[in-house]
Amino acid sequence: MATKKRAAGPGKSKPGGKLWAGRFQGPTNRLVEAFTSSLAFDRRLYAVDLDGSIAHCKTLKKAGILSSRETATLIGGLTRIRGEFESERFPFKPEDEDIHMAIERRLTELVGPVGGKLHTGRSRNDQVATDLRLYVRHSLSVLGQEVQDLQRGLVDQARRHLDVIMPGYTHLQRAQPVLLAHHLLAYVEMLERDRTRVQQAWERVNVMPLGSGALAGSNYAVDRQYTARLLGFSSVSENSLDAVGDRDFVLDALAALSILMMHLSRLSEELILWSSQEFHFIELPDAFCTGSSMMPQKKNPDVPELVRGKTGRVYGHLVGMLTVMKGLPLSYNRDLQEDKEALFDALDTVHAAVVLYGELVKGMVIDRSAIAKTAASGYLLATELADYLVSKGIPFREAHEITGRIVRHCVDRRLDLQDVSLADLRTFSDRFEKDVMDAITLEGAVERKAQIGGTARKRVEGRLKTWEKVIG
Amino acid sequence: MATKKRAAGPGKSKPGGKLWAGRFQGPTNRLVEAFTSSLAFDRRLYAVDLDGSIAHCKTLKKAGILSSRETATLIGGLTRIRGEFESERFPFKPEDEDIHMAIERRLTELVGPVGGKLHTGRSRNDQVATDLRLYVRHSLSVLGQEVQDLQRGLVDQARRHLDVIMPGYTHLQRAQPVLLAHHLLAYVEMLERDRTRVQQAWERVNVMPLGSGALAGSNYAVDRQYTARLLGFSSVSENSLDAVGDRDFVLDALAALSILMMHLSRLSEELILWSSQEFHFIELPDAFCTGSSMMPQKKNPDVPELVRGKTGRVYGHLVGMLTVMKGLPLSYNRDLQEDKEALFDALDTVHAAVVLYGELVKGMVIDRSAIAKTAASGYLLATELADYLVSKGIPFREAHEITGRIVRHCVDRRLDLQDVSLADLRTFSDRFEKDVMDAITLEGAVERKAQIGGTARKRVEGRLKTWEKVIG
Amino acid sequence: MATKKRAAGPGKSKPGGKLWAGRFQGPTNRLVEAFTSSLAFDRRLYAVDLDGSIAHCKTLKKAGILSSRETATLIGGLTRIRGEFESERFPFKPEDEDIHMAIERRLTELVGPVGGKLHTGRSRNDQVATDLRLYVRHSLSVLGQEVQDLQRGLVDQARRHLDVIMPGYTHLQRAQPVLLAHHLLAYVEMLERDRTRVQQAWERVNVMPLGSGALAGSNYAVDRQYTARLLGFSSVSENSLDAVGDRDFVLDALAALSILMMHLSRLSEELILWSSQEFHFIELPDAFCTGSSMMPQKKNPDVPELVRGKTGRVYGHLVGMLTVMKGLPLSYNRDLQEDKEALFDALDTVHAAVVLYGELVKGMVIDRSAIAKTAASGYLLATELADYLVSKGIPFREAHEITGRIVRHCVDRRLDLQDVSLADLRTFSDRFEKDVMDAITLEGAVERKAQIGGTARKRVEGRLKTWEKVIG
Amino acid sequence: MATKKRAAGPGKSKPGGKLWAGRFQGPTNRLVEAFTSSLAFDRRLYAVDLDGSIAHCKTLKKAGILSSRETATLIGGLTRIRGEFESERFPFKPEDEDIHMAIERRLTELVGPVGGKLHTGRSRNDQVATDLRLYVRHSLSVLGQEVQDLQRGLVDQARRHLDVIMPGYTHLQRAQPVLLAHHLLAYVEMLERDRTRVQQAWERVNVMPLGSGALAGSNYAVDRQYTARLLGFSSVSENSLDAVGDRDFVLDALAALSILMMHLSRLSEELILWSSQEFHFIELPDAFCTGSSMMPQKKNPDVPELVRGKTGRVYGHLVGMLTVMKGLPLSYNRDLQEDKEALFDALDTVHAAVVLYGELVKGMVIDRSAIAKTAASGYLLATELADYLVSKGIPFREAHEITGRIVRHCVDRRLDLQDVSLADLRTFSDRFEKDVMDAITLEGAVERKAQIGGTARKRVEGRLKTWEKVIG
Repeated sequence: MATKKRAAGPGKSKPGGKLWAGRFQGPTNRLVEAFTSSLAFDRRLYAVDLDGSIAHCKTLKKAGILSSRETATLIGGLTRIRGEFESERFPFKPEDEDIHMAIERRLTELVGPVGGKLHTGRSRNDQVATDLRLYVRHSLSVLGQEVQDLQRGLVDQARRHLDVIMPGYTHLQRAQPVLLAHHLLAYVEMLERDRTRVQQAWERVNVMPLGSGALAGSNYAVDRQYTARLLGFSSVSENSLDAVGDRDFVLDALAALSILMMHLSRLSEELILWSSQEFHFIELPDAFCTGSSMMPQKKNPDVPELVRGKTGRVYGHLVGMLTVMKGLPLSYNRDLQEDKEALFDALDTVHAAVVLYGELVKGMVIDRSAIAKTAASGYLLATELADYLVSKGIPFREAHEITGRIVRHCVDRRLDLQDVSLADLRTFSDRFEKDVMDAITLEGAVERKAQIGGTARKRVEGRLKTWEKVIG
Repeated sequence: MATKKRAAGPGKSKPGGKLWAGRFQGPTNRLVEAFTSSLAFDRRLYAVDLDGSIAHCKTLKKAGILSSRETATLIGGLTRIRGEFESERFPFKPEDEDIHMAIERRLTELVGPVGGKLHTGRSRNDQVATDLRLYVRHSLSVLGQEVQDLQRGLVDQARRHLDVIMPGYTHLQRAQPVLLAHHLLAYVEMLERDRTRVQQAWERVNVMPLGSGALAGSNYAVDRQYTARLLGFSSVSENSLDAVGDRDFVLDALAALSILMMHLSRLSEELILWSSQEFHFIELPDAFCTGSSMMPQKKNPDVPELVRGKTGRVYGHLVGMLTVMKGLPLSYNRDLQEDKEALFDALDTVHAAVVLYGELVKGMVIDRSAIAKTAASGYLLATELADYLVSKGIPFREAHEITGRIVRHCVDRRLDLQDVSLADLRTFSDRFEKDVMDAITLEGAVERKAQIGGTARKRVEGRLKTWEKVIG
Repeated sequence: MATKKRAAGPGKSKPGGKLWAGRFQGPTNRLVEAFTSSLAFDRRLYAVDLDGSIAHCKTLKKAGILSSRETATLIGGLTRIRGEFESERFPFKPEDEDIHMAIERRLTELVGPVGGKLHTGRSRNDQVATDLRLYVRHSLSVLGQEVQDLQRGLVDQARRHLDVIMPGYTHLQRAQPVLLAHHLLAYVEMLERDRTRVQQAWERVNVMPLGSGALAGSNYAVDRQYTARLLGFSSVSENSLDAVGDRDFVLDALAALSILMMHLSRLSEELILWSSQEFHFIELPDAFCTGSSMMPQKKNPDVPELVRGKTGRVYGHLVGMLTVMKGLPLSYNRDLQEDKEALFDALDTVHAAVVLYGELVKGMVIDRSAIAKTAASGYLLATELADYLVSKGIPFREAHEITGRIVRHCVDRRLDLQDVSLADLRTFSDRFEKDVMDAITLEGAVERKAQIGGTARKRVEGRLKTWEKVIG
Repeated sequence: MATKKRAAGPGKSKPGGKLWAGRFQGPTNRLVEAFTSSLAFDRRLYAVDLDGSIAHCKTLKKAGILSSRETATLIGGLTRIRGEFESERFPFKPEDEDIHMAIERRLTELVGPVGGKLHTGRSRNDQVATDLRLYVRHSLSVLGQEVQDLQRGLVDQARRHLDVIMPGYTHLQRAQPVLLAHHLLAYVEMLERDRTRVQQAWERVNVMPLGSGALAGSNYAVDRQYTARLLGFSSVSENSLDAVGDRDFVLDALAALSILMMHLSRLSEELILWSSQEFHFIELPDAFCTGSSMMPQKKNPDVPELVRGKTGRVYGHLVGMLTVMKGLPLSYNRDLQEDKEALFDALDTVHAAVVLYGELVKGMVIDRSAIAKTAASGYLLATELADYLVSKGIPFREAHEITGRIVRHCVDRRLDLQDVSLADLRTFSDRFEKDVMDAITLEGAVERKAQIGGTARKRVEGRLKTWEKVIG
């Protein structure tokens, strides 16, 4: 077995340290302690755990279970503990199983036996669920802002390059001319759906399980809605069995994060393509690239590659958590402890990727001349030619067929469409007239797509303005 | 080895049949035709494709692109085609690549060259996206109803067994007494979240991409909002590049379906456990079980097992689609064709599972005596004992410790808590008094959990009434 | 919403038709029949089921359980049934749950009550496992051949283009010159690992479970090794509980297929990139592409896109099956029925993709001039320059640094390395001498990579010869 | 954004620190540094990196590229660095991107400019691939031993309880009696397949990529087979492009680990079921369980629950890595950096789970009386009754039907099979005779399953002996 912490050996720890040890004869196996401990990853919950405990104290006091004095003592102790964490001086002990037990243990050290009253009417099951919800709620809320920053970066680039016509692609084949701004705003639309998903996940997170006890509710007449108000929850859970075993909010978050990363992976793919010497639509800032240990000329788009790669990581966490939940009987099972690392890592990954992309998008340099050169060839205007024929009364299918043959003719002769003379065009159809040459310009092609959602400049500019209002 | 349809051999099909063949010299490879064809699975889209085409006709007419007469001819032809499908007499041809091309091809056969006008200002890219959205919209809408039926079945069982106390479990260990009704209602809560997710997925589906063309918009001044009204869409897509390459709605649906199946897998696990001879909390109706080909006594809970198993199938489709989308550049890529089979199979699976569970839940028989027997042992009341001590002034942690030792004492002597005399209890703590025996009854334990979400009868009954109003 | 077969309604089927109905009072629910039936997908097992049954008959006869006459009757009936399948005249009945029951039912129709003896000492559990193994064994064996065909296509292209130097890429940035043949042979290496994996999966499949009964073994003294010899199995399972619940062989196959598809997805990505106008290293044959319904000029690399997309499908099936198996108690559970559709679809998908790629690779046309043009720029020779300096005594890190600065100098001035004069080079380092110009040629760069695995022509040619021997 | 290391702020680091900085103008963004750094997780590779570098030195010397003196200096420096790591005094610097750069940077600090010669003819691409293979090779090799330890624990328990008859289950319904030893040995079979898979993954890992350079090979005439011998590799990679971009060995390992965890999840499920009050076939040692913070009586099977839960984690890592690799063009892409964390975490998880289960299995206590009580009821002998009728000449299907009706009769009257009188039996079939009562005993039922793989005691004992020889 490999990692250091687990190599501790097969010794036994004293059972006395455990807050649940009364019923047990034998001590816990050391390997088991390492295996079951969540302290390495749940310590980041300290702040929300303290928030939750303080609200719980106030609720117990309101219910007459704690005296004013006891309440003051407990809150005082908890506040002191917060200070210890913030100054990184909190004294962890080897027997601390998780952050919750560590804090309760420390509280009793600081304030004496009254510390043992904190857990009245509460179980770790509802406590952990509450803490995790508080943490995720905050994290998703910040994420919403970060996504908006990234949208803003894209909107800014779109605004600055509103005149750039690029080849739009389907199947990675040049298809029709579009505004670069239109292309960039496509990502803004995707990210807006992501924001909605994050918001909806946030709403499902924002329900308070505290007061559900271990599974059945608590024996104390606590006012759960009061606690919820203290903690900013918009509602309280309505079924204790459900509340302690429910991890839908984790899955909601992971699903939203997975789809967001999917969008970023598409953007990554394009940034990588566009940075290649073959496309060269953009130049990434040096600050976002690294070199090669061997090849001195290399400037690699590492950030987009890593974001694309990290998509797998986030997908994997979603799959992991779906697997964890599959087939579990009600209510709480220890399997649920697996919720945290996956979620934390997914959140960290997505926060970092979104923030970085916000910066990177701002810094990327558009290579207008390379784009212009690319847009000039590749039969981007073939559809215009077909629609020209339609405007002359030919049914679309026939017009498509005729144009297809003209393209074939060009491919064989290595010509572009613009290079075919009117006379030659007329050998394919006698409907071609002089005005055809006006029909097949990049600008005309773009401007004709003028319905809602089309790439015509006025449409794109309209959408830009909307975005600038919404996220400006 | 290959399936029959692919074994067709390496011949070539005539290219002429293809609606896009103008540009091509060589015919399509037969294996390629089989590999790229989606007709085997997209033919279920025929009805929504016809709806979409009729709305498109009307829109072209409104824009002055089709005459009244042409419009009437086209809609007449499309209506006739609908009849052919409904009577299962639609004449497919080998060269039909997909349902959309099959219908357009047939239309031209029926109405002549004017059929070639139907595709004016439309691409398969926006057409397919529209059809799929129409289909999914309907399917999710029906699913919402089916989930509600299942909820109703659970609510009915809860109502009929409001007096049954069962052992609540954590870690599959008996934990505290709860009402069976409370347990059943936990699933109603989960399913309600599922309904919300399905509803939110429905909302994101309900945006119309038609009019986005292949990627850039269409060259025709069509009124997209008019088309949307005709098709019942609540809004139109705002970016054509996004609209043709966006499959978020498929992922939203698959994520919602996966979480729903996860819930059903938990219910399945419990139905299987409860049907075992060891638990025997329920008896499943014969109609939902099958026997063994070899062991004559077997009555197997096949439906719950299959539902649990099919969870994997739905998860797999989610993973499949996330994988498909990863790293695709804009806008449309042929990879997206993989969206349909996965989604259709997931929808079919979930519809069937939810409908069956609606029936099964109604039919399952609760074994009151087995439950009562189980609830009577297993130290379910230990927490009550601890809380009793708290009520006598002992801090919870100490009370927990004392009770733990009493349980240890009972385990060693194979006693239940109720079997310990007051005198013996007092050897553990002198706070025990005569009233302790009232404290440790199943009914008392249940009734004390009286906050919102607790298992006390009045709370459960209150929640029942709410559900009966909401989904009655 | 539901598929047609499930819409049959809530009627009941007569229980009498079931071969296990003795213990049951109520009939099976129709929806349940549809939900639990596997006939739609397991009918492809008919041939292996008949093989297995015939071998089982012979084994029962050898054990004295069947008389010669009975054996002849049964084998006669089974042979007749095979004929019915082969001529597509096998009469299925609505109550047939699966192919195994259908065949046994039909056998009894054909030969009378003696048909009831066929299932002596056998259970569906061991029967199904045996059939599936026979099917998968054959399918994997064919797949091995198909992969070899694809390797052969790559080897042939490599041989035909042994002189073509292309830019090798890392991070999709041009890195160093390599032989196109070297690049193509990289895929041959990957596919060879796939063949090993397929072979190892084949070996784990090739163990016979028949004779394990439902879970405990059979009550009859059958000679399992004799049956195994009849069916070509190399060994028999050694634990009946394991044998009926083991689906490792399905997972082994799915894992091997997933990795194979991953390799094909990489090849697909390159074929798509190389078919783009920006790269244009290759031209795919028309027969492997399709056009656009709207854009007449399009020639889309549909086959590579679909293969890339179908990677998701195969991954999804692997995930689905891993999910199915998670947390199942021993031995057989009905969840296992989910093994077939996933595996069959994965096998069909991979067979089709590999066979198609075999054809496509043969037909693709290399655009030598486009490749040559691309290889001529992009600082592919920078590493050569650094190594030149090393050969003049400069430590590699310093040489790398100097060359990096030279590249920077070129980028700023839009020069290629070959365009820098010796005098200018010497401003970066006085170690540069006249011979530097010989050092920085594409051919020299390729030829210097002459260790095992390097891209030097003699190495690549050597490897080609090995492959031609192995798979010729 | 959340984690501490990433909160460093948007500053810039000095580019000069980077070993590839020559070509770059701007410094690296700090967020980018944090995002792209792998040091947090690849530092565990330090030992294998040093091994690889020392072997590389020796190879450069053999090729005449390094002098004896230089070689001694470099190896001296590397050895000193090893000491620094082992005493946890290695001085990391903020600009260290990964463990490889950290070591090279430190080497140059220690030995001066000659340190810059270490990377001659090597790239990070081949170096990282080599290091990771060395690490995985060792880890898989240890895992093989650990799995064998777990097998030994199961074999020992089987040996000690060779006389215990338990109910065998299918569908979690009691099916037929089996030996507990037979059941335990089923897991030994599964684990043996896991060992084979681990071994085969090990073999595919054991191929050396060093000498492949960045992608094309190296410019130096190094003897790669000599390096391979120094590092214990059984062969060298044959294609440089493949070698630097190949992560099949990671997927092979993850697939093997996933299937292994799937097996452990099945064992976990059974340990959890068997620890429930309803089954109580076993008692887990206190040292492997924990209690509840609220319910004093609880003793929870945390270790099996966590192992079951962690199955999701390992599956997730497999999915993550499959996603990473999907659609990557050759050769190296930065996405590949994602290979390490997933694999390391999967290996750590599986090592810990297997080692813990080795201990837990040894310590679990079988509750013979609970098992005996359970085996005595539940119609486990119905198949025996049917086979009895077969022995009296009734075809199996008819015998199955008759027995089914007898079971129905018993269920309705709450009888066990043994409670039915001969007279009553004869009302179902006149073939029943006095000897039927001998036919339906647990011992008889077990003993009759006497073919290979059956549960008869002599068979199980035979298999036990084989295992004791193999893994004793």
